[in-house]
Amino acid sequence: MSDPFVVVGADAAGLSAASKFRREAPDREVVVFEKGRWISYAYCGMPYFVAGYVDRMSDLLSLSPSEVDERGIDLRRDREVVAVEPDAKRVTVETADGDRFEQAYDDLLVATGARATTGPFDVRGVDGAFTLHDMDAAAAIDAYVAEPDAYDPDRADVSAVDRERVDRNAAMRAPETAAVVGGGYVGVEVAEALAERGLDVHVFHRSGHLLSPFGETVGNRVEEALEAEGVSVHTDAPVDALVGDDRIGAVEIGDEGDPETVPVDMAVVGVGIRPNTDLLDGTGVDLGAGGAIRVDDRGRTSLPDVYAAGDCATARHAVTGEPDWTPLGLTANRAGRAIGATVAGDPTPVGDIAGTAAVKAFDTEAARVGVLDRGKAEEAGFDPVSETVTAGSRSGYYPGAAETDVTLVADRDTGRLLGGSIVGTDRAAIRIDTLATAIESEMTVPEIERLDLAYAPPFSPVWDPILVAAKVLNGTLDG
Amino acid sequence: MSDPFVVVGADAAGLSAASKFRREAPDREVVVFEKGRWISYAYCGMPYFVAGYVDRMSDLLSLSPSEVDERGIDLRRDREVVAVEPDAKRVTVETADGDRFEQAYDDLLVATGARATTGPFDVRGVDGAFTLHDMDAAAAIDAYVAEPDAYDPDRADVSAVDRERVDRNAAMRAPETAAVVGGGYVGVEVAEALAERGLDVHVFHRSGHLLSPFGETVGNRVEEALEAEGVSVHTDAPVDALVGDDRIGAVEIGDEGDPETVPVDMAVVGVGIRPNTDLLDGTGVDLGAGGAIRVDDRGRTSLPDVYAAGDCATARHAVTGEPDWTPLGLTANRAGRAIGATVAGDPTPVGDIAGTAAVKAFDTEAARVGVLDRGKAEEAGFDPVSETVTAGSRSGYYPGAAETDVTLVADRDTGRLLGGSIVGTDRAAIRIDTLATAIESEMTVPEIERLDLAYAPPFSPVWDPILVAAKVLNGTLDG
Repeated sequence: MSDPFVVVGADAAGLSAASKFRREAPDREVVVFEKGRWISYAYCGMPYFVAGYVDRMSDLLSLSPSEVDERGIDLRRDREVVAVEPDAKRVTVETADGDRFEQAYDDLLVATGARATTGPFDVRGVDGAFTLHDMDAAAAIDAYVAEPDAYDPDRADVSAVDRERVDRNAAMRAPETAAVVGGGYVGVEVAEALAERGLDVHVFHRSGHLLSPFGETVGNRVEEALEAEGVSVHTDAPVDALVGDDRIGAVEIGDEGDPETVPVDMAVVGVGIRPNTDLLDGTGVDLGAGGAIRVDDRGRTSLPDVYAAGDCATARHAVTGEPDWTPLGLTANRAGRAIGATVAGDPTPVGDIAGTAAVKAFDTEAARVGVLDRGKAEEAGFDPVSETVTAGSRSGYYPGAAETDVTLVADRDTGRLLGGSIVGTDRAAIRIDTLATAIESEMTVPEIERLDLAYAPPFSPVWDPILVAAKVLNGTLDG
Repeated sequence: MSDPFVVVGADAAGLSAASKFRREAPDREVVVFEKGRWISYAYCGMPYFVAGYVDRMSDLLSLSPSEVDERGIDLRRDREVVAVEPDAKRVTVETADGDRFEQAYDDLLVATGARATTGPFDVRGVDGAFTLHDMDAAAAIDAYVAEPDAYDPDRADVSAVDRERVDRNAAMRAPETAAVVGGGYVGVEVAEALAERGLDVHVFHRSGHLLSPFGETVGNRVEEALEAEGVSVHTDAPVDALVGDDRIGAVEIGDEGDPETVPVDMAVVGVGIRPNTDLLDGTGVDLGAGGAIRVDDRGRTSLPDVYAAGDCATARHAVTGEPDWTPLGLTANRAGRAIGATVAGDPTPVGDIAGTAAVKAFDTEAARVGVLDRGKAEEAGFDPVSETVTAGSRSGYYPGAAETDVTLVADRDTGRLLGGSIVGTDRAAIRIDTLATAIESEMTVPEIERLDLAYAPPFSPVWDPILVAAKVLNGTLDG
């Protein structure tokens, strides 16, 4: 117990682990290496910063370096861990200047997160083309979108920001038309954000409906919500190329031989993310779904005394029982906190995931949980049966009642709930928590139909949309 | 099988049962006796009609008599069942004219609902004094509140309405100051409604906080919400008397020897309801909690072939496992539907209740579930431990984040969740469904802390208020 607990990465998982560890084991040392300048920022808040809903970038920071210091955590920024030697129990660290040194550990947590993939598009060096996966990109987009004389430099009020990049983007003529490449949840949020900033926005999505993991019902309603606010949604429209030399000028979609060209003066690419695992190359660590580091129910990797958590790690899926990769904020915070406790001597499960996710497009709220995809359900040994209903969010006579679509998927043999989605404009997304709870307690659809959910005219009709969906799906299961 | 399925009462439970029975057993006869003219009305919507949120009384009706007829249900209004002979399997029915006849049954469902109790206050014959437990009272209150020249008689657009009573109340000078006697959920809703109609409203509540079954945290925040909109809330203030001869003039509160008099020109008494069981007097039927008809998990009473459902019947509580009396709309609809199926030959459980309830006071939403009361928990054999937290409803940087108070109660030995309440202004009430689901699946607080609830900045912070509360309560349980 002479060497410290070493944490790689100073965001949600890493700092949750370090903080919990310090509280539980105040006499032991914890060192956190962060390769950049940014720590503890709200990734999920970036689109809302770009939209202008959030005034100052500093509002998106949970902890400042000095607050981390006050917790007794030895935080070292501009220090990238480039290699791990599990047998020797030490890591190799590289400074921003390229110097290297070694650090021994008793326990190691890899919390290196994920990075945006850009598919075939290299946005580097093309003005007006971005990916949105870090705070510097958010600050640059925010500056680019504003007219030079209207930009408020205090919006990027964090010392870590790449000020040169911000200034350069702020000086450019503001764009009028933007392409959002990819209609996943970041794409949907960025589309709303840019439309709120007054741009003419086009969303291009490879497959037939937006938000693929949310299912077709949700995708179609979110598409309607975007279109109603003037966003042009192009489905079955994979982007072939970004066109432009110094500055983006257009995107090309459709047939390679006869592509359609849509002129734009801005593009944000959000086609996916990939776990950061390079530092474990050569260690023989087991990787799992999505190329993420495979961990057990305590967050342990296949390497001794090496843990992983957050967007770089798998988590056990409550429906399939298998390691899954669904990188989201709660998973990272929760796993980090549990590992901090475990390393401090209080073994704590990291918890299952249910694949719960929520997103909004203007006033339309959407959420999903569990396994919605037929193929994935079958692969896990289930025989999925699905129904979708449209039901009122409140008693019909109460003002504001809104059509809410609920999809439920269950296993034919056992009636067990496998997944669900909800979309609507009135308190729709938060209702997913009811289904997440039902999934994690392995409830059947008949049990869900008999749940005593709240009935009060301003919030729910006698039969909540979830109960209506359960009733209909039960009829199908019986039939 | 020569005699019909007889249903007593044509509201939520009775008509749900009759409708389900007709669908499942189309060749068999069902007769529904209703003692009055009204059928299938939304009791819970009446305060919102009085508030003016609902334009027409007919909006509160789910089914018209002709729609019931189209379902093949033999509905007979103005027919009161006054006696049941379980051995002979027949009921005695009295018409509005006082004539009596007998009706044989194969199966009988008692769905007679509940009536408002008025405590020591006889509101009959006193102008301006009301109880709100039927549509005629709602119509009369709505007419009384309006100035004679401003009242729109089309608001009471249902033929069943007591037009003479409406007209008489419409002709009176409109009140300026109202007393609401009783601060339960109907009292809170009526206070909001009358304030919305421009009255100076006083709420008098016997105990120390409003909404007793919701606990003190909720009661206090709802009191603040009412006061913020100009409603005067008097707690620890039992009303001794309504004062006035022909028309209400004041209420008296406080010491009998030295009462305080508050002048009012309107009073609405909402001090409780009582199950309607008179028709079973002399049958020896088992009664249970609250004097309601005790039923088993299929809705069967202690009398052969006699069922009971809705506000006149008990239901099994998911936490205590005992028959409980929590008269609410979903319970009635669900039990009626299940009994209709059972009588038709498809045995169906009526389902447990979790005591889930929700209410709003202007923009403040409150909800409760399970067992919150320490005494009741101990009586059921638990050792209750409770914590209350205040947490944000959204990510802190996201506009509209609102303080949400969550109380959780758990059993010390097992960690099992026994009850909870939630109050706040941003999607607070609907979150209770998560706790209801957790209670009905007998989850423990550690399991709840690890739930994968939705995180998205517009709807929930990383740690949903429910997760924050579970974390804090777990700390207490561990300590």
